[in-house]
Amino acid sequence: MDVRDLQGRTVAFLASGGLDSCTITHWLASHGVRVVCYTADLGQGDEPDLGAVAERMRACGAAEAHVLPLVDEVAEAGLGAVQAQARYEGGYWNTTPLARYVTVRGALRAMAKAGITVLSHGATGRGNDQVRFQLATNMLAPSVEVYAPWRDGEFLARFGGREEMIEYCLAHELPIKPPGQAKYSTDANLLGLTHEAGELERLTTPASFVTPEMGVRPTEAPEEPEAVRVVFDAGRPVEVGGRPTGSAQAALRVANEIGGRHGVGIGLHLVENRFVGVKSRGVYEAPGMELLGQAYAFLLQLLLDRRARRLFDTVSAYLAEQIYQGYGEDLGSSLARGVVAEVAALASGTIEVACYKGGVSFLGASDVPRSLYAEEAASMSRSEAFDHHDSEGFLRVLGVGAKVASRAGQVPGVAELAADE
Amino acid sequence: MDVRDLQGRTVAFLASGGLDSCTITHWLASHGVRVVCYTADLGQGDEPDLGAVAERMRACGAAEAHVLPLVDEVAEAGLGAVQAQARYEGGYWNTTPLARYVTVRGALRAMAKAGITVLSHGATGRGNDQVRFQLATNMLAPSVEVYAPWRDGEFLARFGGREEMIEYCLAHELPIKPPGQAKYSTDANLLGLTHEAGELERLTTPASFVTPEMGVRPTEAPEEPEAVRVVFDAGRPVEVGGRPTGSAQAALRVANEIGGRHGVGIGLHLVENRFVGVKSRGVYEAPGMELLGQAYAFLLQLLLDRRARRLFDTVSAYLAEQIYQGYGEDLGSSLARGVVAEVAALASGTIEVACYKGGVSFLGASDVPRSLYAEEAASMSRSEAFDHHDSEGFLRVLGVGAKVASRAGQVPGVAELAADE
Amino acid sequence: MDVRDLQGRTVAFLASGGLDSCTITHWLASHGVRVVCYTADLGQGDEPDLGAVAERMRACGAAEAHVLPLVDEVAEAGLGAVQAQARYEGGYWNTTPLARYVTVRGALRAMAKAGITVLSHGATGRGNDQVRFQLATNMLAPSVEVYAPWRDGEFLARFGGREEMIEYCLAHELPIKPPGQAKYSTDANLLGLTHEAGELERLTTPASFVTPEMGVRPTEAPEEPEAVRVVFDAGRPVEVGGRPTGSAQAALRVANEIGGRHGVGIGLHLVENRFVGVKSRGVYEAPGMELLGQAYAFLLQLLLDRRARRLFDTVSAYLAEQIYQGYGEDLGSSLARGVVAEVAALASGTIEVACYKGGVSFLGASDVPRSLYAEEAASMSRSEAFDHHDSEGFLRVLGVGAKVASRAGQVPGVAELAADE
Amino acid sequence: MDVRDLQGRTVAFLASGGLDSCTITHWLASHGVRVVCYTADLGQGDEPDLGAVAERMRACGAAEAHVLPLVDEVAEAGLGAVQAQARYEGGYWNTTPLARYVTVRGALRAMAKAGITVLSHGATGRGNDQVRFQLATNMLAPSVEVYAPWRDGEFLARFGGREEMIEYCLAHELPIKPPGQAKYSTDANLLGLTHEAGELERLTTPASFVTPEMGVRPTEAPEEPEAVRVVFDAGRPVEVGGRPTGSAQAALRVANEIGGRHGVGIGLHLVENRFVGVKSRGVYEAPGMELLGQAYAFLLQLLLDRRARRLFDTVSAYLAEQIYQGYGEDLGSSLARGVVAEVAALASGTIEVACYKGGVSFLGASDVPRSLYAEEAASMSRSEAFDHHDSEGFLRVLGVGAKVASRAGQVPGVAELAADE
Repeated sequence: MDVRDLQGRTVAFLASGGLDSCTITHWLASHGVRVVCYTADLGQGDEPDLGAVAERMRACGAAEAHVLPLVDEVAEAGLGAVQAQARYEGGYWNTTPLARYVTVRGALRAMAKAGITVLSHGATGRGNDQVRFQLATNMLAPSVEVYAPWRDGEFLARFGGREEMIEYCLAHELPIKPPGQAKYSTDANLLGLTHEAGELERLTTPASFVTPEMGVRPTEAPEEPEAVRVVFDAGRPVEVGGRPTGSAQAALRVANEIGGRHGVGIGLHLVENRFVGVKSRGVYEAPGMELLGQAYAFLLQLLLDRRARRLFDTVSAYLAEQIYQGYGEDLGSSLARGVVAEVAALASGTIEVACYKGGVSFLGASDVPRSLYAEEAASMSRSEAFDHHDSEGFLRVLGVGAKVASRAGQVPGVAELAADE
Repeated sequence: MDVRDLQGRTVAFLASGGLDSCTITHWLASHGVRVVCYTADLGQGDEPDLGAVAERMRACGAAEAHVLPLVDEVAEAGLGAVQAQARYEGGYWNTTPLARYVTVRGALRAMAKAGITVLSHGATGRGNDQVRFQLATNMLAPSVEVYAPWRDGEFLARFGGREEMIEYCLAHELPIKPPGQAKYSTDANLLGLTHEAGELERLTTPASFVTPEMGVRPTEAPEEPEAVRVVFDAGRPVEVGGRPTGSAQAALRVANEIGGRHGVGIGLHLVENRFVGVKSRGVYEAPGMELLGQAYAFLLQLLLDRRARRLFDTVSAYLAEQIYQGYGEDLGSSLARGVVAEVAALASGTIEVACYKGGVSFLGASDVPRSLYAEEAASMSRSEAFDHHDSEGFLRVLGVGAKVASRAGQVPGVAELAADE
Repeated sequence: MDVRDLQGRTVAFLASGGLDSCTITHWLASHGVRVVCYTADLGQGDEPDLGAVAERMRACGAAEAHVLPLVDEVAEAGLGAVQAQARYEGGYWNTTPLARYVTVRGALRAMAKAGITVLSHGATGRGNDQVRFQLATNMLAPSVEVYAPWRDGEFLARFGGREEMIEYCLAHELPIKPPGQAKYSTDANLLGLTHEAGELERLTTPASFVTPEMGVRPTEAPEEPEAVRVVFDAGRPVEVGGRPTGSAQAALRVANEIGGRHGVGIGLHLVENRFVGVKSRGVYEAPGMELLGQAYAFLLQLLLDRRARRLFDTVSAYLAEQIYQGYGEDLGSSLARGVVAEVAALASGTIEVACYKGGVSFLGASDVPRSLYAEEAASMSRSEAFDHHDSEGFLRVLGVGAKVASRAGQVPGVAELAADE
Repeated sequence: MDVRDLQGRTVAFLASGGLDSCTITHWLASHGVRVVCYTADLGQGDEPDLGAVAERMRACGAAEAHVLPLVDEVAEAGLGAVQAQARYEGGYWNTTPLARYVTVRGALRAMAKAGITVLSHGATGRGNDQVRFQLATNMLAPSVEVYAPWRDGEFLARFGGREEMIEYCLAHELPIKPPGQAKYSTDANLLGLTHEAGELERLTTPASFVTPEMGVRPTEAPEEPEAVRVVFDAGRPVEVGGRPTGSAQAALRVANEIGGRHGVGIGLHLVENRFVGVKSRGVYEAPGMELLGQAYAFLLQLLLDRRARRLFDTVSAYLAEQIYQGYGEDLGSSLARGVVAEVAALASGTIEVACYKGGVSFLGASDVPRSLYAEEAASMSRSEAFDHHDSEGFLRVLGVGAKVASRAGQVPGVAELAADE
């Protein structure tokens, strides 16, 4: 699909408001495309006035420009990831991918009302985001076409890089913000920040190279630990740090504030496997996700027996990968979310943690009705439970299989050991 | 099996040197059992003079008492866990279980030479350790019998608890150390400390309640981060913090020292699932394991593509559970170790991290010949690799499946979304 | 718990009606226990008149004897296993374990009404069934005690084996059925038969040694294949072989009949891992489960993309193990069933198979609205889908990772290959 | 990459000898490309005289044409899949993918000697094979380029389909075989046949529509079962059906013959997930793989305890997917093969099965030194093993966790059950 196919048609463009947005909007409009810009309000801290973005887009030639109010929706997505403990490759809270789904959903709803059937975005042709935009759209609205200027030969021929875009915008007097000298690129929303590229590509650049925007580096955090109580009700944080949090958004805002000031979840480094099969390096900020995620992890320790944990951990890793790779809306993800939701329904209780210099440590747990470590259980393990004699039987039973394995020669035994010396 | 069956026989007793060891040794000897005590030198910091332990055991009635030099062996086991990233339930470095296998192996080797066929230990009848002693022995030497006084009715009838033992030892003038007022119990070796029971059983006791023995609490660590370089050669740390480390033991000693002084791996809290099916709460110290383990994790990020990672992560969780549950010597564990070893063979390179207030963060990576993020790869992804046009093809290919899923009604689509509003 | 603890109390005994049931009932009654017998009607073909069983139990001293009508419930459990494809160790349809849960549930409901708090069963102390009875009871009604005569020293001292029981029954003129010369033992219900022990313990006894009760051996089946159409509606078989099947029971009865006459699912051999850690050998019959299970598998092939399949297959193996081991009622099993149910909701369509000489082969599939292999999909893959050019891009993208892995030395390459020769 | 890039260069073309091979070879040569044809001898039954193929290729304009003797190598690959039980999506023995790797390896070795750096193949742009050719080449020899005419616009413009190729070959008097009226397409090698496309695309075409080439349909098999003894030595079948089989090739040839005449592994149907994300339907033949695979499965039942089985089954499914998707040479596959090889080293013993009308059933197992079901084990479970009393302890221990889960409200209990009625 290239720009010629779009002439005379209306295209929904996902505009962040930056240099790319201005350039693409104007360039499309100048090729006879009617551009309707949608800017997602995801609680991104770096762009406080989204109304101004819409205005700018109109100044760049957009026929219409709207702000989509999606903060609550992205907060819910974030809470879902907390409940799933869905950290990609063990580390990344998937803050950007989660927001992509929310943005696509929001845009598709608006497009359905407005009768627009082409979705366009400014993601480049090497990264993960283009995959997410494409697959989410294909799944949620298979008849909607996706147009990516950065994969259109004509656009690429015109704009080799940043310089040509700046030049173009200046020449057309487009209201771009004064271009800075970014040493890396950043994607932001309420859930967290994703930093990559530029100086970060060199593996000798430390994670601390990034200037935090959602808090401070651990080294700059207060000298005193702060105790934070998180009250969960059926998987939802209804009180964080003494403040009632009636919505996922509220919980994340409070948690971002507290975690951020202690360097929690700030400067996480990950060399990760992109979906396209190459490695990329990211540095992440997600103070609220990390704080709530750790608190939730402490709660899960009380709830999951080892059999349930095995399944939950499998599902958690699975869902983290699905979300990252752009498959967060497919059947597999839906199945995984069902598991997470059933566990979340059990997850009520109060967890107290200490935030200190980037770390979150355990202070205490209380009022966890579904706990397998409840008072009653503890007392039972004394009174009606097994005695030492039972253990003898337990071990004799288990020992049979162990001895059989040994005698079948499946385990190198003591004779070999002796010979080793 | 009870003490009557042992009369006139020789029993190898695994003696730590504490109150239990003194009591059991004397009690057995007084029942006509010839007791040969083995005390494992595992680098445990809490008991610096193991020769004195042996002497004490003899004074308690042991016919013989020997120290088994097992520090190198437990260090190798620890390094294996680092390479496997084998943390039980995501947290515990399995420091005690790993040492149990090493102790059993060492004792069985000595017993084979001495012709002793009964192994005895002082683990109680509720915990994990009895399982490990039993299963490891059954697998490594199936003809060796295991006798556990704490599961022998006669012993239990005589010794209801700590008080009776102290009384017994005083009455028999056994050289016990003056009994302290432990608020929890601790197991120690070079790899780490396991604290549990006592005050720690209450979930409102914070992890920081434990007085660290291998370092300091994060809050007591230096104000300045310390850069630590770890050089791995085929999975082995050959240099740590500027010091050449020619053995696993050397590497762990240096890492314990550095990590410990920064509070790294100190005070880890875990409510874990015991093998017997109940929850227990532990607080752990493992500064060296944590430091080396994190550095190794950063190295693995460069080596494992996402397919290999999926298998490795599965094997890692599997092996962690096997080790914890006492199955660290069986076929499944051997299979898992093969996977870990093949990855370790690729794991050469230099990782630099910063230790600060309990945290380990990424400073840099270099000289990683098997890296999938190597210079060559980076340059290739520009020159000969795919262009934006290829991505269009890539996404069109992937998009087909996405659209099919949507049209088959497996994904709730935009119509429903619109209806949601 | 032994019989003395039960004197004067009422015990619910799960009576099958055989020699054990008669002996245990009478022996308990003679020790002052009030025995209420429950016999589960599970559609077992070997015991057509369960009313007669109840009568016999009363004649043996039972204060009361009731038949619990559980055929529909066990059929539902079987359908759940079909939907989960939950075959233990790849083979066994778990027909006996599934029935154990249903029996325990049924008995506990009756006991709750009758105010009985002790459950007793005749399972021996070596097998899997005692585990299932115990764990299911502990989970579903933790205050109910479980009494197993075969683990009671007094009972064991009196009854060493079969001969003493026969003698005892004859001496007390109990109405036992004339004891046959069983060459193996069998457990039966609507879902299938489990044969084990006796001659079957020798691994040189072929699976065909068993005389089938639910059909014929493949070698004795008709010379002509029979086409069987199974219509699934949201995971439920609503028509089998031309007959409407309004319930799981009806579907299984028809499928047992058709499958059975063709030797389908007859004589399955499995050397399996018992929960207690030793191997046992079983020969199974489950014609209806096999027929419906295969048809459902063919349907799933149309529904599950490879990501969803990966999760489903994991959950399937997990649930099969849970059910077998006695954990079919715990949290993990509940989580797994949620996944199975969500997939089942998509599983509508018509599958036609051929039954022939023990085999089930694919004849055709039609009317599968959620199919990823639908007409529309097929046509789409021609018109709007990717072209050969897109594939070039697809492969160039994937090729980058492949080349990087090679250049990083992770794959033994052509130079080595050449050197191999 | 298109044909113009190749002018004046030498290209290695993987020629099967069919219509495509003739057309592509001639067309490339006529565009100034020096074509060196390699035809892999993979034991394919459908093309007995591969020397004639080479001759034909030369007649079509190939500068050179060679037959690569790869039967032993593909047989080894097949044996590896038997040992791994690596059936894609539970059914397909991966016979075609396995041969692709062998072919690429063989061709790259020849190319390395001849100094050829471009590999070309006739796989189309929709299927799995192009992925396998590409990724295997990229991994094994990253500097070798891959040229696929079916993804070259110029070639596609000239040859829309089969008709144009026939016309072209006739016009240039190329020695094509008289084109038949294939109702589906087939790929063949020693391991098996893959049938797909054409009439098979309709899901109402039964699997039996395919005319078997490696044996007979089950319905056409003999009326009498045939007992087949397979002797395995360290994972290798050294005797099959009474014939010593000194190589994997010999074992597969005998197994193909025996299995084939009984319809074993003939006509397997699978609607599978292609790597590119769409479903395709295949009908497969692999009598020898199925016969040896089933015998090996019966042997594994004796060897794997439930912990080892869990890991093995995971690895098996993982490797099957890797092989199918073209990643059979990467790190993950190598890790998986290590697990399979360690298990194979234990797999010695004699398995006797019966082949009858497409089925393989168990007759007996003997001489399995590593068996966990050995004589010794059986006797031990009577003498030194656990007694009924131990089971009581075992269950009391396990029961604690079960009761705790129930009391924590994680399991719907008897009260609810009562309320259900």
